[in-house]
Amino acid sequence: MRRQILNQPGSAPEEALEGLVLTNPTLIAYDRERGIVTRATPARDKVGLVSGGGSGHEPLHAGFVGHGMLDVAVPGAVFASPTALQVHEGTVAADSGRGVVQIVKNYTGDVLNFRIAGELAGDDDAIATETVLVDDDLATRSAEEDGPGARGTAAVLAVEKICGASAEAGAGLSTVAEFGRRVARNARTLSFALSAGTHPGETSPAFTLDAHEVELGVGIHGERGTGRVPFADADTLVSLLVEPLVTELGVSRGSSVIAIVNGLGGAYPIELAIAARAVHRQLTGRGITVARSLAGSYVTSLDMVGVSLTLLPADTDLLPLWDAPVRTPALTW
Amino acid sequence: MRRQILNQPGSAPEEALEGLVLTNPTLIAYDRERGIVTRATPARDKVGLVSGGGSGHEPLHAGFVGHGMLDVAVPGAVFASPTALQVHEGTVAADSGRGVVQIVKNYTGDVLNFRIAGELAGDDDAIATETVLVDDDLATRSAEEDGPGARGTAAVLAVEKICGASAEAGAGLSTVAEFGRRVARNARTLSFALSAGTHPGETSPAFTLDAHEVELGVGIHGERGTGRVPFADADTLVSLLVEPLVTELGVSRGSSVIAIVNGLGGAYPIELAIAARAVHRQLTGRGITVARSLAGSYVTSLDMVGVSLTLLPADTDLLPLWDAPVRTPALTW
Repeated sequence: MRRQILNQPGSAPEEALEGLVLTNPTLIAYDRERGIVTRATPARDKVGLVSGGGSGHEPLHAGFVGHGMLDVAVPGAVFASPTALQVHEGTVAADSGRGVVQIVKNYTGDVLNFRIAGELAGDDDAIATETVLVDDDLATRSAEEDGPGARGTAAVLAVEKICGASAEAGAGLSTVAEFGRRVARNARTLSFALSAGTHPGETSPAFTLDAHEVELGVGIHGERGTGRVPFADADTLVSLLVEPLVTELGVSRGSSVIAIVNGLGGAYPIELAIAARAVHRQLTGRGITVARSLAGSYVTSLDMVGVSLTLLPADTDLLPLWDAPVRTPALTW
Repeated sequence: MRRQILNQPGSAPEEALEGLVLTNPTLIAYDRERGIVTRATPARDKVGLVSGGGSGHEPLHAGFVGHGMLDVAVPGAVFASPTALQVHEGTVAADSGRGVVQIVKNYTGDVLNFRIAGELAGDDDAIATETVLVDDDLATRSAEEDGPGARGTAAVLAVEKICGASAEAGAGLSTVAEFGRRVARNARTLSFALSAGTHPGETSPAFTLDAHEVELGVGIHGERGTGRVPFADADTLVSLLVEPLVTELGVSRGSSVIAIVNGLGGAYPIELAIAARAVHRQLTGRGITVARSLAGSYVTSLDMVGVSLTLLPADTDLLPLWDAPVRTPALTW
């Protein structure tokens, strides 16, 4: 049993936000009344960016509030959407007169509540909003037109970075949103887990695996994956992510990608670095250039031991936005 | 059993270094031949800084190579000192004509091999060296004059940051070393663990605890602590670190500290943020100002689930050095 360093399980997300703000007081502030995390010093005269969703994915989203990324994060309870009223407060707080882009991971509750909030912001506050829907998870893409669509996972980090840089550079509402939609359209993510995360206050993980099994295509809410594959070494496990992603994206020899090697919470630094090495070597071995990459725990699922890989074709106009300065609790350069 | 994302266990540290460099190619380079990690672009005309020690503590030390911190890191195998010849190579590589400060955690092998390397650098290469010994672990301090002394743990991060900023600002060899010695002398660390780390390739952690036990005063090599305490909530566990540290350092109402809330590898982001909140609240509650703080997994012990707290009195001449720009894989501002 994985015991946890917690106080009251129900207040874990809120206490974690307080801890994040106490550690980063010059970057972010927590407005507990409104249930939102803002920049310590709000930006002026730029397109606002708001994102949010269930907690349990820390440092997402509050860890990405700051210069060059989000203006406001709206956290829900663990794995639960923030309310429409909360998102409305966040949208209003993100506005500095040039409209707000809402970055929404594709889950029913989030989509609904951000939509209502956007309508409220338009009707009540005359704030123009655009929505970028992130549905990058390759494991849940299907041909069904009327299904819920694919889950939003770690590509949201790339969407927030690119939109953030575009907004900081002074782009207008539709331009910022269009950059975000392009990233969301072009980025794909796939993940594996050796073990599931355990909900705060519970004593068992969301699912269990036999010693010879690995779950492929897991979600970030304890959702099981598309199937179990045999436990294997890091290079083999990473190849189970690289191959389908490369095929899906159609990136071929001579092309160039941005890669995010993302720990799902319980993977420790040596594991993440070894996974990153495998990603680089396997892509390079296919003649694909890794133009930029990250390796860290950015979009987690509590203490899940696993890795997700996000690949995004490195269009030449995206790289300056990726490289633009960013100063947030969880991403700084 | 905590399975691991690894290839050959014996090559895990080396593969992790390769992964770190592939992810941060503009910051660091890995010289496999010499067994050292250097800045991608070596600094010129400044005091050099070299540190190192066993692997298994990632991102330490290679993650702290870059502008504002180390020039060179010298990694050994997991929990094993680098060789004297490796440290000698690292010391030579760190020198740009103004001498080298060796930052050494207090373990017998490290102390011996850095000493031999320093002598070799002096005799063979006419490089002046100074040594800063880091022995911050409160759990292993004793009155015995002839014992091995206290272990070096997470305060090494503060030593590397302060020395790094001092060297970058142009200070001379003895000044940089004296800043480091002051930090090492004044900083103290204490830790607890809910579970021990598992050595790559092994199937059992270094020690096991009953469900109602927490190990207090653990080391970063799977060393057991000073005793077992009852499992409790985060605030209580953190108080077991805060109280002895505050007493030992004699920080009283009105004083000001730098605090490092360090995850030992397997603690996930919510846990670390909740621990950071507790540290801030408990210190503030005693009238102690937290002038600066960090919360993250910086000096780890494989996948150990636990937290260490380092407190350093925030002398007014240290804060500008703490705040000075730093650009490394694991610490950037």
